[in-house]
Amino acid sequence: MSEENVVFIGNKPVMNYVLAAVTQLNSGADEVVLKARGRAISRAVDVAEILRNRFMTGLEVKNIKIGTETIETSEGNTANVSAIEIVLTKKK
Amino acid sequence: MSEENVVFIGNKPVMNYVLAAVTQLNSGADEVVLKARGRAISRAVDVAEILRNRFMTGLEVKNIKIGTETIETSEGNTANVSAIEIVLTKKK
Repeated sequence: MSEENVVFIGNKPVMNYVLAAVTQLNSGADEVVLKARGRAISRAVDVAEILRNRFMTGLEVKNIKIGTETIETSEGNTANVSAIEIVLTKKK
Repeated sequence: MSEENVVFIGNKPVMNYVLAAVTQLNSGADEVVLKARGRAISRAVDVAEILRNRFMTGLEVKNIKIGTETIETSEGNTANVSAIEIVLTKKK
């Protein structure tokens, strides 16, 4: 179920992702999962904090996971990047 | 107790912080807390992952907290920055 409500955080402005998450939550989802890799990890935390503090004060952090993902570079090598997954859920 | 074992992650190379954490853990601490703000958040996750996967495979993530801190800018204004706290602990 959580797989349906994933917002992948990339290099766009923070507010794009905040709005994407708000839209999901307002269309009935009880939780939203923010996923990011590498440098975008800081932005994922920004998105979570802006959501919780400004737009949807009834949200809480349910779980945060960190991990390492192996990606293939354009030269065919592999590289490891850190990843984060932040699960935000509506307070009951 | 955890306050004694904090590694603040800033803008230095990742390995500096990995070594700081390894040193703390090898001198008897059971856990280490990685703290970072703003852009350094991604680096904190890198430090945690490198520690766990390469240097101290007996470590596990005990807890991750995110939050917002208010800082004063050089012009005297205030700004909000995201923060992260990652607690790593030795597996029993």
